[in-house]
Amino acid sequence: MNIALLPGDGIGPEVIAQAVKVVKAVGKKFGHKISFEEAPVGAAAIDLTGDPYPDNTHEVCLRADAVLFGAIGDPKYDNDPKAKVRPEQGLLRMRQKLGLFANVRPTFTFPSLVHKSPLKLERVDGVDFVFFRELTGGVYFGEPRGRNEQGTKAFDTNVYSKEEIIRLARMGFEAAQKRRKLLTCVDKANVMATSRLWRETVQELASEYPDVKVEYEFVDAVAMRLIQWPKAYDVLITENLFGDILTDEASVISGSMGLMPSASLGTENKLFEPIHGSYPQAAGKDIANPLATVLSAAMMFEYAFDLKEEAQAISDVVNKSLAEGVVTEDISEGSKSYKTSEVGDWLA
Amino acid sequence: MNIALLPGDGIGPEVIAQAVKVVKAVGKKFGHKISFEEAPVGAAAIDLTGDPYPDNTHEVCLRADAVLFGAIGDPKYDNDPKAKVRPEQGLLRMRQKLGLFANVRPTFTFPSLVHKSPLKLERVDGVDFVFFRELTGGVYFGEPRGRNEQGTKAFDTNVYSKEEIIRLARMGFEAAQKRRKLLTCVDKANVMATSRLWRETVQELASEYPDVKVEYEFVDAVAMRLIQWPKAYDVLITENLFGDILTDEASVISGSMGLMPSASLGTENKLFEPIHGSYPQAAGKDIANPLATVLSAAMMFEYAFDLKEEAQAISDVVNKSLAEGVVTEDISEGSKSYKTSEVGDWLA
Ligand SMILES: CC(C)[C@H](C(=O)O)[C@@H](O)C(=O)O
Ligand SMILES: CC(C)[C@H](C(=O)O)[C@@H](O)C(=O)O
Repeated sequence: MNIALLPGDGIGPEVIAQAVKVVKAVGKKFGHKISFEEAPVGAAAIDLTGDPYPDNTHEVCLRADAVLFGAIGDPKYDNDPKAKVRPEQGLLRMRQKLGLFANVRPTFTFPSLVHKSPLKLERVDGVDFVFFRELTGGVYFGEPRGRNEQGTKAFDTNVYSKEEIIRLARMGFEAAQKRRKLLTCVDKANVMATSRLWRETVQELASEYPDVKVEYEFVDAVAMRLIQWPKAYDVLITENLFGDILTDEASVISGSMGLMPSASLGTENKLFEPIHGSYPQAAGKDIANPLATVLSAAMMFEYAFDLKEEAQAISDVVNKSLAEGVVTEDISEGSKSYKTSEVGDWLA
Repeated sequence: MNIALLPGDGIGPEVIAQAVKVVKAVGKKFGHKISFEEAPVGAAAIDLTGDPYPDNTHEVCLRADAVLFGAIGDPKYDNDPKAKVRPEQGLLRMRQKLGLFANVRPTFTFPSLVHKSPLKLERVDGVDFVFFRELTGGVYFGEPRGRNEQGTKAFDTNVYSKEEIIRLARMGFEAAQKRRKLLTCVDKANVMATSRLWRETVQELASEYPDVKVEYEFVDAVAMRLIQWPKAYDVLITENLFGDILTDEASVISGSMGLMPSASLGTENKLFEPIHGSYPQAAGKDIANPLATVLSAAMMFEYAFDLKEEAQAISDVVNKSLAEGVVTEDISEGSKSYKTSEVGDWLA
């Protein structure tokens, strides 16, 4: 197994380092030969090469069987609307060039952390749903986009083809078949032409999955119901921008955002990353919580290599670290806390 | 005062009827001559005329000093992506033709209802923020939109001009000056060209309001933070689609969605409506909660007629109905509940 490591910015390098320790330990225990190749991305890559997703980094990803990604983003780029190169462009280009069209974001609870949820216990306890967010289409890539000549008007284009919708929706239907058999298609079909194509296409596909119950909900309604009754959901499918907003909203529900992993899947390439950001304030302090990245490595074993036992071994040791309190200060709650690197060593 | 009444669909007619009772009582008490003119909109108007916003309804609104609006939407149109006429089109056309470019949506708590919030008390108690959502631009109206010839591809256009941003942003700045002096500009400037124009334009305006602190946040981050720390916000400004999603998300925070009013303001026209929907399951049963519509009438006295005392009188009697338990079954919590019409009579 050849794994590309893209640590990125902020706390990215520190959390990736812990995942590497764990992946190595799994390789040793289960007898897999695992090699790693590291490459820069985001602000780190701009600083080095002027490009947030350099060609060489892309080559490294193409060669790899899976990509482990940290985080990108640097505040020095955030409040400068005129910046020519932005770290996020690297992320978007990477998604597109690697064809990572499906972002898989599970939301589930850890019994020892669910009390940290902003929601009341009875609303959130046992929540278990997963978003399939389309990741390489929509307003993120649609053309034309830009300004008129005088710069007084700006425009973006949202665009979706039936094939883009179908391949994402199929993943959702298949996931629902293995879960509680409920699929929610999230759109804004009462306003947007793209959403009407989404709804129509999903309605057509539904007959191929007669065991799955399909519900259609407007994005504004889902933004409400996710908070009111998150347990009502099983699998949700949606377009890129709605997915961006709703998966982030969903990430705070369980009270364990620092632990939530994700996968971005394409036909050829597969990438795994924590859902948290680059958290620049914590960078270099050895205090960042590595568990989301470690659990992303677990998703990697499952989704990229179909190795469920290896994935389970990682989930198990993460649960053990929680049970025994070998955790970073963000979740130690006044008890003894451990450094990022110490948690990584312990897990490995 | 000439008030246009647009009851619309579902529970709309019932809740509007209660607001009318209250407005009449206020007129009598404070010595205002108030006349009403009613007109159909939404599914109700389609059934009557084939058009969800008939010309005659538009005339009635233009003649009026303010519009009181119920709700629109009928499930028979929701799951038919090919329906040629949809009730929502009436709403959108009304907003555009009346030039209602600013949707004002306050979120605040009622001490007697805050325990109904899905959020923990310490997160939500005392929440007090207001959204200014741009309402006549963006992807709701941008051209081109539609399908390619074969129908296999759909597209929408998001478009904003500097003037559209400025007039909405000024309302936000001015509201912030009268409140806690914090303005949050919500955008997706790391991805969208329209968002970069928003951010740039607000940055330029900010120097005219030196007493207001301006923060810039991405829409996905706000979707999270609204749930984590809703008390952090004061005034938020945003574009049409983000506002649609975030104001609905915000509406569940206080635990009193059935009580939340809103205003949609333009240069010439002003419309007031509850934020809840048409709630078709409850239509005709005399059980819908009329308080949001009644509080929208309070906003009408304040925003359309600059009559603060009248607005306050309505807020006061609503608080009294809550304190004395003269409320509909959705908030009576097992105690005696009252019919929609009984609550309206009592308030009047
Ligand atoms: C950084 C940004 C471009 C990105 C997105 O909007 O997709 C991020 O919010 C995410 O969800 O991964
Ligand atoms: C019904 C729909 C078109 C409308 C919107 O999206 O603006 C509604 O959700 C709202 O917020 O008033």
